Amino acid sequence: MNRKTCCGGIKACWDSASGWFCVLCVGLLTGFIACVIDIGSTWMSDLKEGVCLDAFWFNREQCCWSSSQADDVCDEWFTWSRLFISKDPTGEHPDAYFVGYLFYIIYAVLFALVCVFLVRMFAPYACGSGIPEIKTILGGFIIRGYLGKWTLLIKSVGMILGVGAGLNLGKEGPMVHMAACVGNIFAYFFPKYGQNEAKKREILSASAAAGVAVAFGAPIGGVLFSLEEASYYFPMKTMFRSFFCAMVSANVLRILNPYGSDNMIMFYVDYQAQWHVMELFPFALLGLLGGIFGTIFNRANLYICRLRKSTWLGQYPVREVLVVSLITAVLSFPHTYLRMNTSELIKLLVSRCSPGSDSSLCDYRYNTSNPLATVLQNYPAGPTLSTAVVLLAIALILKLILTVFTFGIKVPTGLFIPSLAAGAIMGRMLGIATEQFVVAHASHPLIEKMCKSSQPCINPGLYAMVGAAATLGGVTRMTISLVVVMLELTGGLNYIIPLMIAAMVSKWTGDRLTNGSIYEEHIRLNDYPYLGAYDELDSMLVAADVMQPRRDSGSPLYVVTQYDMTVSDVDQLISGCDVKGFPVVVSQESPYLVGWVSRRELRWAMDRERKYDPNIVDDSPVYFASVQQVNINDTHELTPVNLQNIVDLSPTTVSDQTPMETVLDFFRKLGLRQIIVTRNGCPLGVLTKKDILRHVRHHNPNNR
Amino acid sequence: MNRKTCCGGIKACWDSASGWFCVLCVGLLTGFIACVIDIGSTWMSDLKEGVCLDAFWFNREQCCWSSSQADDVCDEWFTWSRLFISKDPTGEHPDAYFVGYLFYIIYAVLFALVCVFLVRMFAPYACGSGIPEIKTILGGFIIRGYLGKWTLLIKSVGMILGVGAGLNLGKEGPMVHMAACVGNIFAYFFPKYGQNEAKKREILSASAAAGVAVAFGAPIGGVLFSLEEASYYFPMKTMFRSFFCAMVSANVLRILNPYGSDNMIMFYVDYQAQWHVMELFPFALLGLLGGIFGTIFNRANLYICRLRKSTWLGQYPVREVLVVSLITAVLSFPHTYLRMNTSELIKLLVSRCSPGSDSSLCDYRYNTSNPLATVLQNYPAGPTLSTAVVLLAIALILKLILTVFTFGIKVPTGLFIPSLAAGAIMGRMLGIATEQFVVAHASHPLIEKMCKSSQPCINPGLYAMVGAAATLGGVTRMTISLVVVMLELTGGLNYIIPLMIAAMVSKWTGDRLTNGSIYEEHIRLNDYPYLGAYDELDSMLVAADVMQPRRDSGSPLYVVTQYDMTVSDVDQLISGCDVKGFPVVVSQESPYLVGWVSRRELRWAMDRERKYDPNIVDDSPVYFASVQQVNINDTHELTPVNLQNIVDLSPTTVSDQTPMETVLDFFRKLGLRQIIVTRNGCPLGVLTKKDILRHVRHHNPNNR
Repeated sequence: MNRKTCCGGIKACWDSASGWFCVLCVGLLTGFIACVIDIGSTWMSDLKEGVCLDAFWFNREQCCWSSSQADDVCDEWFTWSRLFISKDPTGEHPDAYFVGYLFYIIYAVLFALVCVFLVRMFAPYACGSGIPEIKTILGGFIIRGYLGKWTLLIKSVGMILGVGAGLNLGKEGPMVHMAACVGNIFAYFFPKYGQNEAKKREILSASAAAGVAVAFGAPIGGVLFSLEEASYYFPMKTMFRSFFCAMVSANVLRILNPYGSDNMIMFYVDYQAQWHVMELFPFALLGLLGGIFGTIFNRANLYICRLRKSTWLGQYPVREVLVVSLITAVLSFPHTYLRMNTSELIKLLVSRCSPGSDSSLCDYRYNTSNPLATVLQNYPAGPTLSTAVVLLAIALILKLILTVFTFGIKVPTGLFIPSLAAGAIMGRMLGIATEQFVVAHASHPLIEKMCKSSQPCINPGLYAMVGAAATLGGVTRMTISLVVVMLELTGGLNYIIPLMIAAMVSKWTGDRLTNGSIYEEHIRLNDYPYLGAYDELDSMLVAADVMQPRRDSGSPLYVVTQYDMTVSDVDQLISGCDVKGFPVVVSQESPYLVGWVSRRELRWAMDRERKYDPNIVDDSPVYFASVQQVNINDTHELTPVNLQNIVDLSPTTVSDQTPMETVLDFFRKLGLRQIIVTRNGCPLGVLTKKDILRHVRHHNPNNR
Repeated sequence: MNRKTCCGGIKACWDSASGWFCVLCVGLLTGFIACVIDIGSTWMSDLKEGVCLDAFWFNREQCCWSSSQADDVCDEWFTWSRLFISKDPTGEHPDAYFVGYLFYIIYAVLFALVCVFLVRMFAPYACGSGIPEIKTILGGFIIRGYLGKWTLLIKSVGMILGVGAGLNLGKEGPMVHMAACVGNIFAYFFPKYGQNEAKKREILSASAAAGVAVAFGAPIGGVLFSLEEASYYFPMKTMFRSFFCAMVSANVLRILNPYGSDNMIMFYVDYQAQWHVMELFPFALLGLLGGIFGTIFNRANLYICRLRKSTWLGQYPVREVLVVSLITAVLSFPHTYLRMNTSELIKLLVSRCSPGSDSSLCDYRYNTSNPLATVLQNYPAGPTLSTAVVLLAIALILKLILTVFTFGIKVPTGLFIPSLAAGAIMGRMLGIATEQFVVAHASHPLIEKMCKSSQPCINPGLYAMVGAAATLGGVTRMTISLVVVMLELTGGLNYIIPLMIAAMVSKWTGDRLTNGSIYEEHIRLNDYPYLGAYDELDSMLVAADVMQPRRDSGSPLYVVTQYDMTVSDVDQLISGCDVKGFPVVVSQESPYLVGWVSRRELRWAMDRERKYDPNIVDDSPVYFASVQQVNINDTHELTPVNLQNIVDLSPTTVSDQTPMETVLDFFRKLGLRQIIVTRNGCPLGVLTKKDILRHVRHHNPNNR
């Protein structure tokens, strides 16, 4: 007895702890995978340009660690041209550039092709960002195999290859997908979660948070991303679990420390300069530009994806990857900013200039004769700065075009880093323009009044940061999670308000121009059964207008009666229609609602009964309620089939006059799949999520 | 025609913009009020010790701005002792201390008494923190007058006086209440929001965010606070509005700049030192201590509040304030750390020590002979440091006791700052202990390996910050919003993971020891109709077990029939029972559910009809449905009273076998007030929020 209680206690304890243990495992593995991907992708990126002969598994930075020379050249690192043409690391062989270019292209295309082959052969679900599908899954839809181990493995490898190939893609969306795979895999080990789809979604929400947490080193941003963007239903308990999961994964990443730095902040901004209230105008302008950019990107990308679905374009995915990677490599190598790793580009753009810097972005005439410049600590542009700006403009346009084509090809692709990069370029350009404007008008009293601190008056790096937030906001329509992710990415806590302004204006602008984020657009494109926040119905509609069968259609509602059906009736019903399930009513004469039975379960139950009980014949009665209560006026000599246990006695119902707005609320908040529409206790029709989506998408001009 | 369209267009535009405009106004006014309170409370705090003779409206800092002397003494600032005894600012008159003490006590008690009189005379709702009530209001309950203009005015003034009196209270909870008042007041100017309680709650959620945003200079933390702690239902649209509102208010505060510094961050930590993985253990320990502290505080405070409700203690609120403020003043003046403004104390505790500092908290033997100390950059404690630690321990105990008594007296009181201070004290003490441990064992290989950076190895300020988060977490059980608020308060983005660990452990510990935050405990204490996240029911219960009337009670369910009732029947029904409303059924013979009519509306409708139609007699029939459909077998010669328009034709229903867990979900997520329980289409009973709360609170041992 005592032992039993003890066992029960342990079991109860395990039951309540198993969820925590599960997300702990998810956090640990997600952190580890992120670390592997970080190391792998850096190594592959560098492999395009050269190799570390002493230890080929080192990337350039690791290879040159022990070297005392500058970053770009070190004795241990062999660029391909140095390896094959001349051994002198500094010597300028005439063909060196060409050989380097060639190797760069060959490796890039090779990586991309290996990636697409792996994806196509082993895990077709591994392609793309995965966030639209995660949203759909968290919204209650089941896509079998989408979160399997093969997807995880191939997506991890594919991600390394894709980033290594230098394609215009990031690893955050895919990280969310991979983390969800990890969550799904671990959930199977915990029956409480593995066997209950709703419970499993709690784990998946937490996993999504961990995914963003490791992609950006942003645990809080991850939780908020899961809350704002990924999850459908996010109660406090899930938030707390997500918080834990994100924390564990970020901690693992920090301990393993793949970046080799002590800092968890990816694009650390080392300045503390205050921004001025007047600068809110350019920041809002950046928000506007970001919203427009996001909309252009979303529309263009959707157009291409639609073409891919409907024309010959989609029939040659491997060739498509080949072409995209080839063009990307050909365009990127000669261009300073396109050739660098996108993360490095962003880091460069958000950082500030100091007199010692040799980057052409920081080419200012510091020894100007103008005394005002010294007061402002902003200086007139030097000769190469304008070249750098032109290069940036070219990079922006090329990146836009390349990313439009890249997001949607059959390799794992994320959008965050490319969007951030595009925004950072826009921001930096506007920042430099503002700076030069201020320098040119330095004697204006307003500017004199504004710029009196000891810090530089205008900081183009800050504009880059704000621009990055604006563009990402325009593409994904995130608000609060965006600002938090940006804060955690840059450490710029002083710049909350500029970031908030940009996120706000960008979302406003974007929402005016087109409805919904790129993820929601892709959900609509793929026709996933997902009820988005933007999906709205004509406010005059009531449940009776949308339910199936329609009132005026004349077609009957298929129901099952408690006691009056025979096996052949049920078989006929199952094969005679394609509805998802049947309301159970008292009888044909008094059709009052008793419960609900799903068609699939009904079919299974019938098959099972037939298998185990050979006495069942076509005329055997089928009971959908307790046999004791049968009002037996005609006593059957045949054994009844009792299907009482498959009847859901508490189906959700609404009356036929319920406004559709309320019904939508029911579906959204309660995560339902169907609702029975009743009047005076009798079922009139059934409303499924698909019915609603069909109505939303085809009858509402706003939703196309 | 054209003009009409144009007008319609403008109207539609205004309709969609009015919400934004409303939260804009709320943000602006909230920021302004926060600024006034900041300035006022600092001035009053300083007034206890002295006055600026040149300009009495200056606080000490402003008074001494132009002075070149140190902070503590300046020629313009007259302490009371200096003013009344000796003119020499540095001279040490024997009675100076005594006079200063006396004035301090007099002013403190005076301010507290004025405060309590104002509250009692003009706005009794202005006392306390207001967060439990805001939670209840956002949960769907209406407390008339709680968010009125008088409450706002008196709470603002009372807050200044309360902080000025040096009581152990903060201004954040009250700021949330004040912001909600502002929201409520502005909502009246926008009919779309003022006339619809659900819409008004959207504005109130946004206001709550603005309240925290200005209290801490933490806009993101504010939004998350509103999401996690205050709001019941927080859709994306509300989040976006809250985001905007918090941003506007924070911006106003920044532009008005009451602190006189350029920095928005209140307790800015100026260190960047990395923490070590090994330190996670002390951080987790701090979380544990914070959770325990929070529980002790909550239990003790609740005990006192319950006494106040049930014994003579509550009958003398003014005397209570007198006693509390007197004791606080008497104890605080002689104690260095209690006497300082609580915010300043926190600032001191989270900051790091540098060799030049003259605070006794930073008394280290920097010129130690131990060469290891120089490597660690942590030094052995000096003689006055141990005194400081003892003083801190005393402060911790006194603060705990005083705050337990203070939170609940009849002045506006917040909990955040006192909790943060207590936690910061605990954290600093543990930090110093860890530091001295590390210094004593500096040669241990583990410690040598851990501490190799150029920064101090152990930073007691960081421990103070983590401890502050832990204690606040223990008291309020916030998680993610807590971490974000702490980040925005301190700017310590490097320390996300320590803060997360502390928040996590503290919540875990707290939840094991007692259910729910201090706010939820107060909600339960006051028996507000609020369904908290912690309120749970036995999982075996179904709707039929909780509904009224009970199945086995024998008492009937009061229903109205569509066509069969007379005026006298209805009158009898209204006066014969005290339920909230009646299900409308087809007839007594076939009692199938048609709709729902609330008792209050029914009574109003009957009164109205009787007033306008003198022909109504007791036998007049009452119709609750369309007259056309009346199956008139007995034609009344009397005019029927048609109450069709007050019947809700789409009441929410559940079947009697629905698990109560699902029903709770319905109430929580849909914000319902009642649900009709049906079986086979017939109403069996009604479940109101109050029934559920009664069940939760009285039948569940966990919830007391």
